[in-house]
Amino acid sequence: MSRNKKQVEIPSTIQTLGPAKIQSPLLDSGNYRGHPQFFQEDDVRIPSDILWSGGQPPKEPGPTFELAGPRSKIYFDSSKLKCAVVTCGGLCPGINSVVRSIVLELHHIYGVRNVVGVKFGFQGFIPRYGHDLMELLPETVADAHGRGGSFLGMSRGAQDIGEIVDALERLNIGLLFTIGGDGTLHAADLITEEIQRRGLKTGVIGIPKTIDNDIAYVDQTFGFSTAVEAAARVILSAHNESTSAPYGLGLVKVMGRHSGFVAVNAVLALKDVNICLIPEVNFDLEGDHGLLAAIRERVVDRGHGVVLVAEGAGQQYCAGDPAEHDASGNVKLGDIGIVLRERITEYFKKNGLELNLKYIDPSYEIRSQPANATDRIYCGFLGQQAVHAGMAGKTGMVVSMLNNHYVHVPIKMAISHRKQVNSLGALWRSVLESTGQPPLAAA
Amino acid sequence: MSRNKKQVEIPSTIQTLGPAKIQSPLLDSGNYRGHPQFFQEDDVRIPSDILWSGGQPPKEPGPTFELAGPRSKIYFDSSKLKCAVVTCGGLCPGINSVVRSIVLELHHIYGVRNVVGVKFGFQGFIPRYGHDLMELLPETVADAHGRGGSFLGMSRGAQDIGEIVDALERLNIGLLFTIGGDGTLHAADLITEEIQRRGLKTGVIGIPKTIDNDIAYVDQTFGFSTAVEAAARVILSAHNESTSAPYGLGLVKVMGRHSGFVAVNAVLALKDVNICLIPEVNFDLEGDHGLLAAIRERVVDRGHGVVLVAEGAGQQYCAGDPAEHDASGNVKLGDIGIVLRERITEYFKKNGLELNLKYIDPSYEIRSQPANATDRIYCGFLGQQAVHAGMAGKTGMVVSMLNNHYVHVPIKMAISHRKQVNSLGALWRSVLESTGQPPLAAA
Amino acid sequence: MSRNKKQVEIPSTIQTLGPAKIQSPLLDSGNYRGHPQFFQEDDVRIPSDILWSGGQPPKEPGPTFELAGPRSKIYFDSSKLKCAVVTCGGLCPGINSVVRSIVLELHHIYGVRNVVGVKFGFQGFIPRYGHDLMELLPETVADAHGRGGSFLGMSRGAQDIGEIVDALERLNIGLLFTIGGDGTLHAADLITEEIQRRGLKTGVIGIPKTIDNDIAYVDQTFGFSTAVEAAARVILSAHNESTSAPYGLGLVKVMGRHSGFVAVNAVLALKDVNICLIPEVNFDLEGDHGLLAAIRERVVDRGHGVVLVAEGAGQQYCAGDPAEHDASGNVKLGDIGIVLRERITEYFKKNGLELNLKYIDPSYEIRSQPANATDRIYCGFLGQQAVHAGMAGKTGMVVSMLNNHYVHVPIKMAISHRKQVNSLGALWRSVLESTGQPPLAAA
Amino acid sequence: MSRNKKQVEIPSTIQTLGPAKIQSPLLDSGNYRGHPQFFQEDDVRIPSDILWSGGQPPKEPGPTFELAGPRSKIYFDSSKLKCAVVTCGGLCPGINSVVRSIVLELHHIYGVRNVVGVKFGFQGFIPRYGHDLMELLPETVADAHGRGGSFLGMSRGAQDIGEIVDALERLNIGLLFTIGGDGTLHAADLITEEIQRRGLKTGVIGIPKTIDNDIAYVDQTFGFSTAVEAAARVILSAHNESTSAPYGLGLVKVMGRHSGFVAVNAVLALKDVNICLIPEVNFDLEGDHGLLAAIRERVVDRGHGVVLVAEGAGQQYCAGDPAEHDASGNVKLGDIGIVLRERITEYFKKNGLELNLKYIDPSYEIRSQPANATDRIYCGFLGQQAVHAGMAGKTGMVVSMLNNHYVHVPIKMAISHRKQVNSLGALWRSVLESTGQPPLAAA
Repeated sequence: MSRNKKQVEIPSTIQTLGPAKIQSPLLDSGNYRGHPQFFQEDDVRIPSDILWSGGQPPKEPGPTFELAGPRSKIYFDSSKLKCAVVTCGGLCPGINSVVRSIVLELHHIYGVRNVVGVKFGFQGFIPRYGHDLMELLPETVADAHGRGGSFLGMSRGAQDIGEIVDALERLNIGLLFTIGGDGTLHAADLITEEIQRRGLKTGVIGIPKTIDNDIAYVDQTFGFSTAVEAAARVILSAHNESTSAPYGLGLVKVMGRHSGFVAVNAVLALKDVNICLIPEVNFDLEGDHGLLAAIRERVVDRGHGVVLVAEGAGQQYCAGDPAEHDASGNVKLGDIGIVLRERITEYFKKNGLELNLKYIDPSYEIRSQPANATDRIYCGFLGQQAVHAGMAGKTGMVVSMLNNHYVHVPIKMAISHRKQVNSLGALWRSVLESTGQPPLAAA
Repeated sequence: MSRNKKQVEIPSTIQTLGPAKIQSPLLDSGNYRGHPQFFQEDDVRIPSDILWSGGQPPKEPGPTFELAGPRSKIYFDSSKLKCAVVTCGGLCPGINSVVRSIVLELHHIYGVRNVVGVKFGFQGFIPRYGHDLMELLPETVADAHGRGGSFLGMSRGAQDIGEIVDALERLNIGLLFTIGGDGTLHAADLITEEIQRRGLKTGVIGIPKTIDNDIAYVDQTFGFSTAVEAAARVILSAHNESTSAPYGLGLVKVMGRHSGFVAVNAVLALKDVNICLIPEVNFDLEGDHGLLAAIRERVVDRGHGVVLVAEGAGQQYCAGDPAEHDASGNVKLGDIGIVLRERITEYFKKNGLELNLKYIDPSYEIRSQPANATDRIYCGFLGQQAVHAGMAGKTGMVVSMLNNHYVHVPIKMAISHRKQVNSLGALWRSVLESTGQPPLAAA
Repeated sequence: MSRNKKQVEIPSTIQTLGPAKIQSPLLDSGNYRGHPQFFQEDDVRIPSDILWSGGQPPKEPGPTFELAGPRSKIYFDSSKLKCAVVTCGGLCPGINSVVRSIVLELHHIYGVRNVVGVKFGFQGFIPRYGHDLMELLPETVADAHGRGGSFLGMSRGAQDIGEIVDALERLNIGLLFTIGGDGTLHAADLITEEIQRRGLKTGVIGIPKTIDNDIAYVDQTFGFSTAVEAAARVILSAHNESTSAPYGLGLVKVMGRHSGFVAVNAVLALKDVNICLIPEVNFDLEGDHGLLAAIRERVVDRGHGVVLVAEGAGQQYCAGDPAEHDASGNVKLGDIGIVLRERITEYFKKNGLELNLKYIDPSYEIRSQPANATDRIYCGFLGQQAVHAGMAGKTGMVVSMLNNHYVHVPIKMAISHRKQVNSLGALWRSVLESTGQPPLAAA
Repeated sequence: MSRNKKQVEIPSTIQTLGPAKIQSPLLDSGNYRGHPQFFQEDDVRIPSDILWSGGQPPKEPGPTFELAGPRSKIYFDSSKLKCAVVTCGGLCPGINSVVRSIVLELHHIYGVRNVVGVKFGFQGFIPRYGHDLMELLPETVADAHGRGGSFLGMSRGAQDIGEIVDALERLNIGLLFTIGGDGTLHAADLITEEIQRRGLKTGVIGIPKTIDNDIAYVDQTFGFSTAVEAAARVILSAHNESTSAPYGLGLVKVMGRHSGFVAVNAVLALKDVNICLIPEVNFDLEGDHGLLAAIRERVVDRGHGVVLVAEGAGQQYCAGDPAEHDASGNVKLGDIGIVLRERITEYFKKNGLELNLKYIDPSYEIRSQPANATDRIYCGFLGQQAVHAGMAGKTGMVVSMLNNHYVHVPIKMAISHRKQVNSLGALWRSVLESTGQPPLAAA
């Protein structure tokens, strides 16, 4: 699947299962009564591009998105509705908080009593895996937000879309909430299409999840604040190691396959990183202006340094070139952290320079943290907004925060391209100001 | 000073000290060279109201604000410039991070070597207090971000504006950075006017600071994420206490004189609060639908509960009524936490009901925390943007994040009214959904 | 009840319900098989006094205590045994960890399937309170150690010993584990006597719990490490406040009714306290060498300071003298924190000195924390040792750590006197070295 | 160097530089005046073995150690004394706290104004490395305890003893404090001997430092509580990963080259580890009762599991077999974590079983943490006791806590053998009870 495809024209209108004719049960609730302002109308929208020039709104304002929130008319009859929640892919802080919020909102606010958890991602829909469904009651999720991981379990790998929709039919699911990243959203998109093909009335609402924070039209994905906090702690360890040894160098690898948001924010949180490498910005390894020379200068001049690398950076250096193949006979495709560790060590040895390199790869530690307060608040909102959208009969969409407002984004738009760090934007500029690193690639 | 005055028409144009004619030293920096996109033009603006209806931008879009960022032409000659930083009012997590960011940005990015810290707020400008200035070098601030409080010291209380500007003249300060809240910004506004009156060329840049998050045209003030995290920990303590005793009630008071943002977000972070009281929403104490009856119902039915009150809520109950005056002879104006503790205890005793009330007032603990990673990132940006704005010759403004973009806001607009929780908006609605509390006031 | 009664002669021999004739099921376990060293014999003992002088053991070695651990012969038949666990008094970090450890040890190691939790302390034994028992299975306690508080609930106040023993009989409890402090142990002692009087075969094993760390013959009570960590965080807040204001004084009150261990250890953990007040050491308030003068000297000389007071210190200053009674008409016995706040404020005002006093009373926050790793390890051992002792038929005892070894202490000895900070010992000496405070009382 | 050599007869008497004739300056201090009990006499000792059998002290009581504490007569004249502090080897939480405590105690309590820090371990004594000495004042160390690492810097590798003593002479050092582990103590022992050979009057006091907690006659080394807390957090991550995937297995490697104390305590802190492997206990990999079969049983039966391995465990499996050598040509000795990851993965694949293995190696993260409150208290005492001992003219010794009392241990005894987990003792027994793991080696 090509991920960096050009942004295509996809309508930002949200699909619905049909007209929302039922009066929302919230109308009867004491706090809503007489306060129609609590309800949100469909026609209020947030533009993606809000930069005005010359006193005018943008000429091409980009897509606009429906504001999220409870609707006064809903599609589903709460007393008859059965909902399912599924968590897919890899861990991310806050998954349990999102599940908890969905369950509590469905149960306490809309009166939906029948909510099931699907075990181990989409596997849980496929009978041959033998995973039982899990009844989700308020007491099931009461303490879930204090724990990392996903208490429902997750899995990777595609499942047959037909079999999943078979299960939705068999189980009589009216609303499916999928918590997952790019792969999950692609599956959710296909599930939505298959549901329409079969003429079913099942809504599909996605909550975007990715520790890399790279989903389009989402200011920031949940769990990101926690992940950055954890990554910053690791960088502090690297900093402590590097300053405690003569010619100490801390080398840290963090997540970020295609987008360097975790690395970039961790730099800004601590300000102790001297060189930051991300997938979006190329760097030379050799040469007077390459990485190795820059590290040498830092370590020799200042006596210590910290280098932070996102896992997707410098992939061209991980394969080895043919000559090296012949010479060594056993090229292993390394990861960039390991490759850098070896190349830096060799370089200093070759130049007769002392170096105390400490390599830290926190790997799974970061993504399995319980969510911090900032993320728990955000997860709570995402869960609530997902339920409001689903109850209103919307489908094929994800809930998102965009320009500081909660909105509905069609799944197709969310998967249309990957969000990346703009190498000429304010975020990366701020990293360069913080690290003081030189340009590391020939222009 | 009347705080809830109507929003008046104040131009959102930023004042300048004069034309910015000097080429930014960033142009020579390796990473900026050949990348004009890193620089930000003045005419790009962010509207405060970004809700579109019927496919159209808002009829009355509200004020729009200049986007923050480095300008390619600046006003000050770095080699001759002397800057001052002052921190005023009460503590808030992240103050040291802002100071650090300003110092590092001035020193490393713009080459400004002469930066002084003013001790104990505006007192530090007034000779009779006898506070020495503090030279601020990169090494002075290197570890500052790990510590709570303000290493410069702060103070409350107004100082004579003339004396402050005398000091600015005497010390030959070209740029003054003020980190403070509403009172500080009022002073900064007067200082700016006095500077103009005297025909001086001193810029005044504010960084808005308030633990209450109630400054206008600011999405969220720095330190707020940390404060909410700390408040949530306290609520967890109250929850643990309340569930560990028969008929346990945890009562927690948090900051929020005029705006309940800390309370509201702490509710959403933990979801263990059953009743939340904020200054913006009135409540009855007595009566079938009053607070006491609601607490009774919760505790008797469920065996435990948690009530969270912002310090500014229910002020009408703090004065005591005349009859009680006569009887006791010494009415003390209590605070709302103490008043509620007494009224609830009395009510349960009068009704012959058991109650184990545990009252927690974390007071200064929350605001003296070191900033978490999320706030440190934010503080870093605020400091950088403040320096970019100041170097460009802008004055009488604060840096802010609005609709997820960094902008320049005239001080007069920032102090034009107080931001409050909209009692008919999505945030308060979400609190009501989380607590499940009934309406507590006669309609 | 007189608490500081002289240490009387109480035999340190542990009572038993009868001969332990049943082979321990641990013998069949793979890891124990063939390893008799894992079992502990009764006749190995730890002396309380281990100081040797002149190459000789102490002349009067003080009591010696049976070493804890699994016995090869036990008293109870696991398949028929029913156990009960009760938690009493106030919260302390780690209670849930102790309960968890008891349940897992009984279930997994000894094969005892029938364990019940008594709700809300001894109330749970008394039918008129209407609390149901709670079945305690491994899955019930699986996540308990991550949470503060007591999931069983606790209560204060004496219950009728006869009714408690009636309940033990009626419920057919063979082993009762009581987690509680001084009051609970007094009750446990009476329960043990009543059981013997009735000729029942029910063992009573106590796990000493007190946030004040003041139980005799216990090196340190569980939860203490966590409490000190929490108290140190609060002192850091006070320090941040005091250094951030001109003439700032942080005043912090922590737990410690009769013993100042929490205060003393918090001082040593942070080294930022300038004056520490504990119940064991008298201080003058007035006079040239009194507390007020000492605070004055510190604040005037250094510009800031932190005073830490244990709640039981300086009780003579809390009553008010008769003259003040007459004047005001309604003297309320204040707490020492409030009293000091007022006296210090008055004193500085009277002397025309500036003071910025910030008072912090963290109260319930500290005791409701979840246990840290050090305490969780300790709680785990205490639970295991309690089960080993109980299964072996021992009764009327508590498990303890003494001189770094786990031992059995008769309840009567544990309640014979209160452990206090020795005002002439190494711990207090270390505090004086850290604070540098002068003697505060006329000799 | 053979580390497991038999315990030889080494006298536990502490060497001195000469008679202590100078009255301690503490006598004049207000708090000591008239309180001779604050001073400690030399002849009070703590036995290492305190187990009594049959009412009698142990027949062979093992060595006894002098109680630590201030002496009323000291050897050095504070006004003329110059002290040096050096930190060696690898990081450990709390190093900065120990240095801080030494400096504050020397300065504030004994009035020693001349204290220098030696940079980067013993390198700092050797001129050709070019490291300057660092003056250590109270303000230098004021905030040191909040930071991980060593602000003095450390280094590994032996330096020439003669050159070190040359430097001590040249710098006129009267007291050398060495903070380091086994290697450092060996060096300190040789330095002490060389000092005696030259007839110098320089005292050498060691503070034992090792993250592995394996130094003889030390209950627990400083930093260990923090390390266990950090390791437990990592295990929680592994647990979250393992339960969130179908057939999830978390594999974690922690420190422990020769002794498994970190692993063992981390198991007990969390109780979520199912198999724990330490250097002291052998295990089979293959076979019906080997590790692989045990992991298979756990994962297949329960669906998930966590394995914790200390780095020194199972070293026999790290070499690779000869056949693989021939084939690849460049076998690198792997570490046990990597080896287990590969062997487990292969085993499950070979048996056609699903497995989701997540490997976590926190490496440097744990040792670079700042010390928690428990360790900071301990570090503070160690520093104080080291200064008391040094000022009294003692030399060739380390300060230690043994059986809950601070004592003086001759360096030669501290390095006589390595402390290990007793595979038939209570600590390991408790691990087996917690994990429920079967015996993993043929008897």
